[in-house]
Amino acid sequence: MKHFAIAAAVFLSASALAADPLPSWNDTASKKAIVVFVENVTKEGSPDFVPVPERIATFDNDGTLWSEQPAYFQLFFTIDQVKSLAPKHSEWKQQEPFASILKGDMKGVAASGEKGLMALLAATHAGLTTEEFEKAVTQWMATAKHPKTGKPFTAMIYQPMLELLAYLRANGFKTYIVSGGGIEFMRPWTEKTYGIPPEQVIGSSGGLKYEVRDGKPVLIKLPKLVLNDDKEGKPVGIQRHIGRRPIAAFGNSDGDLQMLQWTCSGSGARFCLFVHHTDAEREYAYDRKSHIGKLDKGLDEAKARGWTVVDMKGDWNKIYP
Amino acid sequence: MKHFAIAAAVFLSASALAADPLPSWNDTASKKAIVVFVENVTKEGSPDFVPVPERIATFDNDGTLWSEQPAYFQLFFTIDQVKSLAPKHSEWKQQEPFASILKGDMKGVAASGEKGLMALLAATHAGLTTEEFEKAVTQWMATAKHPKTGKPFTAMIYQPMLELLAYLRANGFKTYIVSGGGIEFMRPWTEKTYGIPPEQVIGSSGGLKYEVRDGKPVLIKLPKLVLNDDKEGKPVGIQRHIGRRPIAAFGNSDGDLQMLQWTCSGSGARFCLFVHHTDAEREYAYDRKSHIGKLDKGLDEAKARGWTVVDMKGDWNKIYP
Repeated sequence: MKHFAIAAAVFLSASALAADPLPSWNDTASKKAIVVFVENVTKEGSPDFVPVPERIATFDNDGTLWSEQPAYFQLFFTIDQVKSLAPKHSEWKQQEPFASILKGDMKGVAASGEKGLMALLAATHAGLTTEEFEKAVTQWMATAKHPKTGKPFTAMIYQPMLELLAYLRANGFKTYIVSGGGIEFMRPWTEKTYGIPPEQVIGSSGGLKYEVRDGKPVLIKLPKLVLNDDKEGKPVGIQRHIGRRPIAAFGNSDGDLQMLQWTCSGSGARFCLFVHHTDAEREYAYDRKSHIGKLDKGLDEAKARGWTVVDMKGDWNKIYP
Repeated sequence: MKHFAIAAAVFLSASALAADPLPSWNDTASKKAIVVFVENVTKEGSPDFVPVPERIATFDNDGTLWSEQPAYFQLFFTIDQVKSLAPKHSEWKQQEPFASILKGDMKGVAASGEKGLMALLAATHAGLTTEEFEKAVTQWMATAKHPKTGKPFTAMIYQPMLELLAYLRANGFKTYIVSGGGIEFMRPWTEKTYGIPPEQVIGSSGGLKYEVRDGKPVLIKLPKLVLNDDKEGKPVGIQRHIGRRPIAAFGNSDGDLQMLQWTCSGSGARFCLFVHHTDAEREYAYDRKSHIGKLDKGLDEAKARGWTVVDMKGDWNKIYP
C-alpha cells in the first residue's frame, strides 16, 4: 500500500509536470493570469475567442527575454568591434567616444551621449554588407562572455520566458521580438535561441543600400536610422512590420510602455505584462531610478490598468536555462 | 466496354485534374520549370533541398498578381479620394495635380510628375489614422470598378498566379508581396484575395506617428516615405522585413529586376520569373516601351541568366478567376 501510494504520488507529480507548460513559473497570480488569458482566447465559442491569424504576441528583448545589465549586450559587441578595428584607426585615440572605449572608461563613453552612440554605430555597423555584419555578430556571440556571470550572452536568457514563448506558439500565437536593439544584431541568433525567425524580429533599423559589387549584388548598411524602435517607435515598428495590432505584449521598461498601451487599448481580450527586476541575488534588481531599463511610469500605468507585473524573485523559480 | 472506357477516361481526366496544382497553366516550359524547381527544393536528400524556414518566395503585385493597366489601381483609388475630398478644398481647382484630376485630365496629372504624385498621396493618405485609412481602402475596394472591364479590382487578379501561390504554400513556402504600391493600401485585402496576411506584405511605406488622442492611442500617417519599395528598394524592403534572401522571386517589370537579381544570385537552387504581358485580347500587351510596367532590361537579363519568362498568351489558359 505504501509502495502503491509512493508510486501513485510519483506518477501524479510526473504527469502534473508534463502537463504544466510553464514549470519555471511559481503558481502565483502572474502565471494564473497568463493561463486564463490563453485559455480564453483559444476556446472556440468563448466571447474572448481570437482566430489564429490574429494571435500576435510581441516581446521586448533587453530585460524581457534576456538580461540587460550592467549595459545592453549590443554595447559590449560594439566595444569589442571598436577594439578590433582600432589598429586601423589611430585617430580614435584622440576622438570620443572611441578614446574612452580604448581606455576602458565607460563613464566617458556614457558622457558622449546619443551623438557618441551614433558615431559608434556608424563606425562599427555601417559600411559593412549585411552578410559581413551577420558574420561579425555570429562570431562574437560564439565567443564573448558576460563580464559578471562569465556566461555566453545567449545563455543569459530567461527560462520562464522561453516556456512562455513555446506555450503561446503551441496555442497558435505568432511570437515577435520588438526591441530597441538593432534588428540585424538580433536576427543571426534569435531563431536558435528563442525559436523566433528573422522575419519576426523587429528592431531599430538603419538604412540599406543595394549595390552590385564585382557583379555580385550586396546590401550595404548605412549610418542612418530608419526606425528607432523604442517608446513611440515600438507601435510604429509593429504597424510597419506586422500590420495588425498584437493581442498580447511583454516588456520590462518605460521604453515598452507605448507598445503595451497600443496592444491593450484594442478591443476584445488583451494581455499586457511587465517583467519587474526584483532579484538582486539571481539576476539584478532595478526599476524607477535605473539608467538602463527604467521602469517608472510603466509601474504606475500597469497598476492603474490592471496589467500583470511579474515579480522575478517571487514568480520565477528559475532564471536562466 | 465502351461505357467502361468512357467512365475510365472521365475518371482519369478528373484525377489528372485533381492532381494538377496548376490547371490554368498550359503544359509549356514555364510550368515545367516551376514544378521541377519546387520538386527539387522539397525533396529530402536532394542536393537542392531547402529547409522549410528558408523557403521564402516574393511576388511583385502590380502586373504580376493583378493587372496594372491603364494605370496602377492605387491611382484610381487616389483619384476617387481626391474627388470625394474636393468639396472641402476649393483651392484644388487652381492647384496641380488636383485641378487636372477634377477635370478628368489624366495627361495633366501625369505632367505633374513625382512631385505631383507625392502631393496627391500627402493629401489623400497622410493625416489619417491607420484605421481610418484601412476603412477608406476597404470601402473603395467593395464598390470601385475597373474603367475597361467593369470588374471590381480584386477580381482582376491572375488565376494562374493564385494557383502558383497555393502550390508554393502547399510545399512549405512562405509567400510575400513585395510591391511598389503602398503597404497600407494592400494589406486590407491581400489576405482574403491572395491568402497573404498583412505581415507578409511589403510595400512603399510612409512614416507613422504614435499619438494618444482623447485617451486613445492612434497611429497617424505622415507625408514622408520611409521605403520606396521599387527597383533597388525591393531588396532593401526584403531585408528590412524578412531578413533573409528569398529563393524564388516573381515580377513583371524592370522595377522588379533588382529583386530577381538579389534572389537568384544567392547560393543553392533559385527560381526567378518574369510575367510577360503578351495577351492584348484577354488582358494587355506591353513591354519595352510601356509607360507602366516597362519590361526592357529585365527581358534581356532574363534571357542572359536563363530565368523563366511567362508568355501570358501561350502559357496561361485562363487569366482572371
